[in-house]
Amino acid sequence: MGYQITALYNHPADTAAFDAHYDDVHAPLTLELPGLRTFSVSRPGPGPDGGKPAFYLIAVLGFDDQATAEAGLNGPVGRKALADLETFAQAGVTILIGPSATLA
Amino acid sequence: MGYQITALYNHPADTAAFDAHYDDVHAPLTLELPGLRTFSVSRPGPGPDGGKPAFYLIAVLGFDDQATAEAGLNGPVGRKALADLETFAQAGVTILIGPSATLA
Repeated sequence: MGYQITALYNHPADTAAFDAHYDDVHAPLTLELPGLRTFSVSRPGPGPDGGKPAFYLIAVLGFDDQATAEAGLNGPVGRKALADLETFAQAGVTILIGPSATLA
Repeated sequence: MGYQITALYNHPADTAAFDAHYDDVHAPLTLELPGLRTFSVSRPGPGPDGGKPAFYLIAVLGFDDQATAEAGLNGPVGRKALADLETFAQAGVTILIGPSATLA
């Protein structure tokens, strides 16, 4: 069992500005989190019905355990990353944290 | 770049029945998807404010590319897995599909 942080970003008003900030600032900052084991980013496309996906970007961060994830989030890099959300994720972001299992 | 399917499950009415079906039937079926590279499952805990998380379970499936993901979903195992959703995910599930990058 590991521990996972999932961030579900709402569609931004300015996707180009969001993408530039995410890729150039937020993702590199996230990569500095102590104890980060895995980090994937997906930008979903339209659904089978051609509709807009429910979220604009999905970030999945994996840690070995809860203590490591919480220490990372509560440390200087984590606090900086959370504060950084205010600068580009004004449309809203849903953050989910909990145990995870890697089945494949 | 890879290709990711993210499934966000709403809170079920009967969590024990959901968990049993997910772990004993749906996850093993998912693992049979041709071309599946990675598969992680997380059940988030309460947020920092103690509130119920926005989703009950998050499944993240990774494939090498769009063609492999779509062939998997549209093949017999994928069709069976999608049909299986009707048997345990009556509370609703949001499925997001799109390109992904593994940054760590």
